[in-house]
Amino acid sequence: MTTHFADRLADAVRRAGNPLCVGLDPRWESLPKAIRDRHDAGSLDGVAAAYEAFCLRVLDLVAGQVAVVKPQSAFFESCGPAGLRALQVVTRRAKELGLLVVLDAKRGDIASTATAYADAAFGGTPVAGTSLPVWDSDALTVNPYLGRDAVEPFIRSARQTGRGLFVLVRTSNPGSGQFQDLDCGGRKFYRHVADAVTAWNSENIGASGFGDVGAVVGATHPAELAELRTAMPGVWFLVPGYGAQGGSAADVAAGFRKDGLGAIVNSSRGITFPFQPDDRAWEDAIVAATRRSVSELSAATHG
Amino acid sequence: MTTHFADRLADAVRRAGNPLCVGLDPRWESLPKAIRDRHDAGSLDGVAAAYEAFCLRVLDLVAGQVAVVKPQSAFFESCGPAGLRALQVVTRRAKELGLLVVLDAKRGDIASTATAYADAAFGGTPVAGTSLPVWDSDALTVNPYLGRDAVEPFIRSARQTGRGLFVLVRTSNPGSGQFQDLDCGGRKFYRHVADAVTAWNSENIGASGFGDVGAVVGATHPAELAELRTAMPGVWFLVPGYGAQGGSAADVAAGFRKDGLGAIVNSSRGITFPFQPDDRAWEDAIVAATRRSVSELSAATHG
Repeated sequence: MTTHFADRLADAVRRAGNPLCVGLDPRWESLPKAIRDRHDAGSLDGVAAAYEAFCLRVLDLVAGQVAVVKPQSAFFESCGPAGLRALQVVTRRAKELGLLVVLDAKRGDIASTATAYADAAFGGTPVAGTSLPVWDSDALTVNPYLGRDAVEPFIRSARQTGRGLFVLVRTSNPGSGQFQDLDCGGRKFYRHVADAVTAWNSENIGASGFGDVGAVVGATHPAELAELRTAMPGVWFLVPGYGAQGGSAADVAAGFRKDGLGAIVNSSRGITFPFQPDDRAWEDAIVAATRRSVSELSAATHG
Repeated sequence: MTTHFADRLADAVRRAGNPLCVGLDPRWESLPKAIRDRHDAGSLDGVAAAYEAFCLRVLDLVAGQVAVVKPQSAFFESCGPAGLRALQVVTRRAKELGLLVVLDAKRGDIASTATAYADAAFGGTPVAGTSLPVWDSDALTVNPYLGRDAVEPFIRSARQTGRGLFVLVRTSNPGSGQFQDLDCGGRKFYRHVADAVTAWNSENIGASGFGDVGAVVGATHPAELAELRTAMPGVWFLVPGYGAQGGSAADVAAGFRKDGLGAIVNSSRGITFPFQPDDRAWEDAIVAATRRSVSELSAATHG
């Protein structure tokens, strides 16, 4: 029997002793010169190979320290088919190292189109009676704008395979309030989305007390994070915005339950690019940045 | 100098004499048996090759009759890297045939992540001073939930290269009202999104009187379509939901301006799968279905 996603996540975070999620957002101009020099900047295949080499090295450096990684699909897609082949290699390696993989693709579409995205993300594309694996990630970020038809096929596909979702509720960007903060009948729009996520999540609660439909809630809005933590006690949060985007460990503290569970906190650039490209000690810099964030977040979790 | 996207679209629709957009949503179980039999159902590479062969044949059959095609990224992604290679081949061939290509990927993310998606969709990924082409489509569908940071990088990238966007406003699915119809200060949520789209669009109006930030408005909500046509006179609409989803030619008539421009109307399954897999005359069925929709929609446009 497949273990419930929420329980796998709770176990992994407990084992690691911290809620850090390492975001994999490779960018050519930020890569170590040592890696760039070995690859062809003139072709997408070359760039994709550099992204793959860099991300594989990052995985080796952070495995054992953290529980979760989050590849950002946009950067792999930006290298075309070769970039998506690299995404597959990186995902497979992360899982071999015992890391959970959240694919950050913010997909959202209706009916059979949503099912196609979801099957590709999780159990594989069904063709002539068998499922062909595609991205094979543990969880996926999903955009709720289209309504229940855009989310339910993802939930169905995730539940069949013991995977999870993180639905965008309150994002970390400066312009997030333009629509998410609109007052709808005395409550902000994102609270209506939060209610829907809470209902979907409650349909399938695991032994850990958490369900499999999580929420994305930005670290850059600590008051909303606290408010949503109270309103959504059984919902796992994926918290972006910590580190380079400005959110501090104190800002994310409100995202955890008393037992220290309930949120994973993402840092991308802060962990993977804490160096200049010509810095030969870039690997040491990644290890040090990971240790620093792990220690900050452990303190915030158990504070 | 690059021609404005809205003008290219207006010219293409005028030349074709109808607003039909053919959606390319390949699915293994719907493909003609003649194509399935030549490909390996046991590997994603085989399935992707079948999708490519089918879509290329559809392009040959509809070119000259219609102005626009809309590949649905989900189905190409569902075949992994090989599927995305097929998407590139299909897009390139569509452009060679004089068709405009709207990539339906409903992307939305913030800051540099949105820029990565946008550059890949349009002018190419910038690496070490040059732009490497990736999807190279004429327009892209975009999800507005994250707010202006999620849309403005797409607008910037589109404007640099004479491409266009279609931002989700009122989608065609049965559950679209769950969030889009929430009452926010006396107006439904989607009207607030429509206002933002109208403002973005007004920043760059072409000779045709239309701008480059379009809106997705479903055919299954004719009253809202009429209301939005009046409220957003210079905005191109992409209208899904006609045909297999239940919207009729009469339902979409309200989407056009008096001059017959202003909307492209998508049909996917209705055009590309009007046959049973073992029907040997599947190509004739596609040609006939295209002619029928073209004639219905020409009448609706000039009604």
